[in-house]
Amino acid sequence: MSLEQAAAVLQEKETFLIAGHVNPEGDAVGSGLALALALRKIGKEAEVVNRDPLPKQLGFLPHEGVYFQRASIDKPVDALVVVDCADLRRTGFYGGEAPPVQTLINIDHHVTNPGFGAVNWIDPRAEATGVMIYDLLNAMRIRIDPPIAASLYTALLSETGSFRYRNTTPKSLRIGAELIERGADPVLIARALFETHSIGRARLLGEVLTKFESSEDQKIVWALVTQEEFRRTGATEEDTEDFVNTLRSIEGIEAALLFRETGPDNYKISFRSQGRVDVAGLAIRWGGGGHRNAAGCSFIGKWDKMKREVLTAVGEAVLSGLPA
Amino acid sequence: MSLEQAAAVLQEKETFLIAGHVNPEGDAVGSGLALALALRKIGKEAEVVNRDPLPKQLGFLPHEGVYFQRASIDKPVDALVVVDCADLRRTGFYGGEAPPVQTLINIDHHVTNPGFGAVNWIDPRAEATGVMIYDLLNAMRIRIDPPIAASLYTALLSETGSFRYRNTTPKSLRIGAELIERGADPVLIARALFETHSIGRARLLGEVLTKFESSEDQKIVWALVTQEEFRRTGATEEDTEDFVNTLRSIEGIEAALLFRETGPDNYKISFRSQGRVDVAGLAIRWGGGGHRNAAGCSFIGKWDKMKREVLTAVGEAVLSGLPA
Repeated sequence: MSLEQAAAVLQEKETFLIAGHVNPEGDAVGSGLALALALRKIGKEAEVVNRDPLPKQLGFLPHEGVYFQRASIDKPVDALVVVDCADLRRTGFYGGEAPPVQTLINIDHHVTNPGFGAVNWIDPRAEATGVMIYDLLNAMRIRIDPPIAASLYTALLSETGSFRYRNTTPKSLRIGAELIERGADPVLIARALFETHSIGRARLLGEVLTKFESSEDQKIVWALVTQEEFRRTGATEEDTEDFVNTLRSIEGIEAALLFRETGPDNYKISFRSQGRVDVAGLAIRWGGGGHRNAAGCSFIGKWDKMKREVLTAVGEAVLSGLPA
Repeated sequence: MSLEQAAAVLQEKETFLIAGHVNPEGDAVGSGLALALALRKIGKEAEVVNRDPLPKQLGFLPHEGVYFQRASIDKPVDALVVVDCADLRRTGFYGGEAPPVQTLINIDHHVTNPGFGAVNWIDPRAEATGVMIYDLLNAMRIRIDPPIAASLYTALLSETGSFRYRNTTPKSLRIGAELIERGADPVLIARALFETHSIGRARLLGEVLTKFESSEDQKIVWALVTQEEFRRTGATEEDTEDFVNTLRSIEGIEAALLFRETGPDNYKISFRSQGRVDVAGLAIRWGGGGHRNAAGCSFIGKWDKMKREVLTAVGEAVLSGLPA
């Protein structure tokens, strides 16, 4: 299926629900809001629905009366549009069952998306789902106004990590330029996405950077965040999302790990690599996965055992990854 | 003077030295290297000279045989091009005396630049000096090759703070797009500029985030970095440049301050505001200056006295800046 087919179905139907994934970030929220606002502009009814509330830092987006937290999808509409979800379960509304009866439109840029919709437009080359929505609105000749521009810029900036990740293409930058001209405020959006943190997060990052450890050869750095530290600082698990990247930014290392205690003898492990070590190949040993430079897994067991087991494996991977 | 006049003088002369400012950052280095490489492409002789060495994190740029650390400018050339310097002293080569005899070309985007050159092209609306060099090379019809593209992208990304500051304009993003097409690697450059830090910096940031203090109403946060901490962690003063922005990113505050001990009873103070408080108006009281949201000054005196004096003034500014 193509952009044109998705556009045709959207033109044909009248009432829509738009769902992103649970624990939504900038791309899911921004794409959903932009599409809902655009459909309203051409006289359709559209709402964004999500199992989870709007993330606090996205509160500046035009979400009131558009974004709704819902326990289930029960409102009868002509079509359900699922955006930025690699599979239907990611919406949090459905299990493994067949897609619901209403027309399901699947718009996504994840390469693993199996095409679970009645209409599927999947473009793994797209920098963000927000870029697909941008192309879609242009194809549908819907004028991008300031609220839509802010939503799409948020999607783009979030998904490219402030134009730092590999999906920072000439096209993504040119769309950014266009969206600023259409009314997006790049400073406000960057601040909201990347430069607004709770005081508890600051305190917890301080603890992590004070106590992180490194291997004898300084090639591996790691830190553990305990439940007690979460409680004491008031930081949430979400607050720690970026901590492992701060560890990865240390000069000269090959791999960085963040262990987070999620319960008694329960841990989440985040792996980052500078490129030589394939951390997805490591995470997979404990049932996780990811990409070559960024991966994760869970671990059930004692801290000492896990630390020994995981760091030994990472150490071997670093050694075999280094030039002889 | 205009771009065209600067281009004409550059075409006419044959040998050049290009000087940026002391303690050069991405915009000064990237602009200088790009201009030197471009002039060489059209058969001229050109070198970048600086009082300070190339910053380590910019080592990926094509600097070998182009960038030279020099104690003084003594090589006889047809013209000296000064880039990204608001005044001639900023080069570190000259005091308050009249400009040297050779043709001096002054290319800069600082609004306070008095026009100290024989040829002055000053454009305060330019997002970066690198943007001016980009326009200049296009006007001179010099093709931007990958080393020039990398240099200019570095200037742009550094000066816009990874496309987050107020100078993130549609034009700046479109130039970024063009430079990627010409061979700049946005991921490598972003990593080098923003995601590579010494282990000592990480440790020192940890201490700052562990011990920072806040006012009773949580509107002001501050931290002191002592000489002992610099020694113990191995971090440099340069490493702490961004610490005050990390403090500013704490939700709900109005002002953030970083005090750095530079010697016995000698301090540097960095001020940041979320917008309501004019910190330039504060810094000026102690002989400093800056912008509304980012300013700095030095202070000679005892820590206790300084802390009381400065925090009282900031507290009053916050109170008078808040809506009644």
